[in-house]
Amino acid sequence: MIDLDVVASTAATASAAWAAMPPRERARALVAAADALTPAQEELVRIAREETGLTEARLNGELMRTAVQLRMFADVVVDGGYLDVRIDEADTEFVLGVRPDLRRYRQPVGPVLNFAASNFPFAFSVAGGDTASALAAGCAVIVKGHPGHPRLSLGTVEIVTAALEGSGAPSGILQLVAGQQTGIDLLNDPRIAAGSFTGSTRIGRMLANIAAARPVPIPFYGELGSVNPVFVTRAALDERAEEIADEFVTSVSGSAGQLCTKPGFLFAPAAEGFAELIASRVAASEHRLLNPSIAGGYRERRDTILATPGVETIVEGSLRLDNEAQGWATPTIVRVSAGDLIAQRDRLLDEAFGPLSVIVEYEGEESLVALVDELFDGNLTGTVHAGRDEDSSALRSLIAWIAGHAGRVLFGGWPTGVAVTSAQQHGGPWPATTNDTGTSVGGTAISRFLRPVAYQSVPQRLLPEPLRDDNPWHVPQQRAAAGESRSWGESYRSV
Amino acid sequence: MIDLDVVASTAATASAAWAAMPPRERARALVAAADALTPAQEELVRIAREETGLTEARLNGELMRTAVQLRMFADVVVDGGYLDVRIDEADTEFVLGVRPDLRRYRQPVGPVLNFAASNFPFAFSVAGGDTASALAAGCAVIVKGHPGHPRLSLGTVEIVTAALEGSGAPSGILQLVAGQQTGIDLLNDPRIAAGSFTGSTRIGRMLANIAAARPVPIPFYGELGSVNPVFVTRAALDERAEEIADEFVTSVSGSAGQLCTKPGFLFAPAAEGFAELIASRVAASEHRLLNPSIAGGYRERRDTILATPGVETIVEGSLRLDNEAQGWATPTIVRVSAGDLIAQRDRLLDEAFGPLSVIVEYEGEESLVALVDELFDGNLTGTVHAGRDEDSSALRSLIAWIAGHAGRVLFGGWPTGVAVTSAQQHGGPWPATTNDTGTSVGGTAISRFLRPVAYQSVPQRLLPEPLRDDNPWHVPQQRAAAGESRSWGESYRSV
Repeated sequence: MIDLDVVASTAATASAAWAAMPPRERARALVAAADALTPAQEELVRIAREETGLTEARLNGELMRTAVQLRMFADVVVDGGYLDVRIDEADTEFVLGVRPDLRRYRQPVGPVLNFAASNFPFAFSVAGGDTASALAAGCAVIVKGHPGHPRLSLGTVEIVTAALEGSGAPSGILQLVAGQQTGIDLLNDPRIAAGSFTGSTRIGRMLANIAAARPVPIPFYGELGSVNPVFVTRAALDERAEEIADEFVTSVSGSAGQLCTKPGFLFAPAAEGFAELIASRVAASEHRLLNPSIAGGYRERRDTILATPGVETIVEGSLRLDNEAQGWATPTIVRVSAGDLIAQRDRLLDEAFGPLSVIVEYEGEESLVALVDELFDGNLTGTVHAGRDEDSSALRSLIAWIAGHAGRVLFGGWPTGVAVTSAQQHGGPWPATTNDTGTSVGGTAISRFLRPVAYQSVPQRLLPEPLRDDNPWHVPQQRAAAGESRSWGESYRSV
Repeated sequence: MIDLDVVASTAATASAAWAAMPPRERARALVAAADALTPAQEELVRIAREETGLTEARLNGELMRTAVQLRMFADVVVDGGYLDVRIDEADTEFVLGVRPDLRRYRQPVGPVLNFAASNFPFAFSVAGGDTASALAAGCAVIVKGHPGHPRLSLGTVEIVTAALEGSGAPSGILQLVAGQQTGIDLLNDPRIAAGSFTGSTRIGRMLANIAAARPVPIPFYGELGSVNPVFVTRAALDERAEEIADEFVTSVSGSAGQLCTKPGFLFAPAAEGFAELIASRVAASEHRLLNPSIAGGYRERRDTILATPGVETIVEGSLRLDNEAQGWATPTIVRVSAGDLIAQRDRLLDEAFGPLSVIVEYEGEESLVALVDELFDGNLTGTVHAGRDEDSSALRSLIAWIAGHAGRVLFGGWPTGVAVTSAQQHGGPWPATTNDTGTSVGGTAISRFLRPVAYQSVPQRLLPEPLRDDNPWHVPQQRAAAGESRSWGESYRSV
């Protein structure tokens, strides 16, 4: 029986020690963790295949991504830009009376509780992006492992923890726990400073509510549901219907559609033969779904959609449950008119987590913004396929609408396959995430686990390293010189 | 009767138009608002004196601060660093497969609902810091005016709105409403994208809970309660007891102690004559409290504290209610031992909003961290008065403890008087604020009202200005070149 009090106090002690480590040492430990994954790749991928049903190619890629993002965050730590250091020099000429020496940067918040995902057993699990970004920020991490891959979680935490601690990280820097009630109990523990989560809207909302209702509320970064609409203009369809059909099917089918960025709706004008093109691309080979719970949820959503008035089946696909209640599926593609989608919104709009997508036939691009504004809340992504040189007010309005309702706007391409890089944004308005000021992929994911603190008139010898004039960590420092306030409000006049 | 549906839809329309305005135009409107306050100063300060009882000098200073911060935010807007623009060039050599062109910046969230404070009728009210930072971010603002200064709120909104709209801002960019239920109804309106608040822990928590429980939860930045402990070491007291006594009394008495950064506890070693020094500094002149509600709350806290076992009265001070239930007070200073403070924590620890402070006599600096760790949750500030060249592990531990439990660490000086500048941090762990990732004072306050969005492979002609290669707004752009990922994880090796 695990003692949660020990888990939480271990995390608190480790977090303080880890936060005090110089950036190069923290970076070295992150790289050691990345390096440790590669020799274990074959064994880990084998376990992951058994536990999740995902393909070897996909899992190999995902493990590599997991190692790469640990290395990326190592560089984010060394760079130090994420600290957002600002130094305002003492200023006797300050317009509101003397300004003291003020220095501000962002400190780690403390222990982070990370609820792992089912669908990314490496990249959003024990050593995944939430863990990597929280460790990079200087926080100890407790992972609530997903019940869909318990052996893999255990195998991963052993390897990664040994590498981290072998590289100087404090004991207890990364801990793994299991069980929903355990997760809830820890989320309520006063020593936990922030939560992260990837999973369903129902569970994510429940946890977000718990985090907000604590005596001391804490930030909770949940990535929940998204249907990722894709919009194809008439010009795009005229130009490259085959390519679009092909790529659409690939994006819907990959990982059996069990991706948060799977395109759930494809808006396209009526076009003879387009549905047949799509149907011709769908492969008949079954893919196992992640676990019985996901299979059950997918069956329910698929049954509902197929039985909805106005829904025309393009590719019926299949779903069967085996003796162990695992689901095996081939892609299902349906078509509905914009009018029927509105009429049946209660049955059709929710995410179907699995290899299913809905083609929506719309009339005229000018009608699109009003239509989608009526239909959708927030999404992780929105994608436009337009003609090569197309430009119109309708197109511009559509892009602006997407930017107002999603975290990522794509022009061409497909939302699945999220690049791990500095400018990525993986997050969006509710219900895509519980907190759309953050991202769970990319270099700025570190920002979720930081809190600004200002130091006023503190002597150099007592300042944290990033705020000192001699800048021993070589971090970027933004300086505001004395006298600057005299010209405040003038800048708009210059050209 | 005000129609809240019209208020919210007006804000939504204005917000979209305002967000689309080029930064120089937005900045010009902010400066116009600042400029419009000065000619109205005499009249506005007269009304504010009647409504709040604050002194003319204080109100003149506060109005100037309000104008200055509008001008500062104008420059923040033109500078564009707050947009945090990141451009990752398309990269065929990317280690995880081709990286598309990705560009990320921060967009305004939409209409902001700002609950004004009682104690800063200018600087945290209609045209105050929350309004200025939300406008700067590109958001329309609805202010729920504080009932303590209704005529001033109306006078201010007329002047500022005329200046903003006269300078090209869309109609409805700033609206004023009144009444707690009106505020709650608007906070529940789906068109409101974020909330800000300055006031009591009770009301702030109630509103934060509402924001979190909405069908679509929104960020809520509330600045609530803080007791701002000040720690005086033996060496500091030996060096400059008179100066400390003098400045302490000034900081506790200013604005009749009705400041969120008033030092509520002064930790000092036992020292003969220190209490008498403090007593000798306290002026006998009465100051009016802001309103009957605050007078009532202060009376209750003061009565409780004075009647608590172990509390020794240093300066009894006074509090009387006049015929209009306004309170008139002179400062009250009490003393308690560290042991009695712990024993009586339930009676003594809550903020006393008014001119009262508690001197805590402690034994030995090594005991301080354990003592305060037992006593305090989050605070806006924590201050250390140490000897000129003092250094010790106890001192370092104390500073680290403050940094872990407050938004601002002061070395010498006093927490009242918050500089409006880039490196300021006015926010701290609960219950100081509902969300300690933000600040309500200083240039980075703008970050509270922004949400990141990434654009993937969007052609130059369709990109927002800050993300374009020709950079027409001249904003800072962080670029990641192709090939960079090949060396990820190497940086910690260099020196």
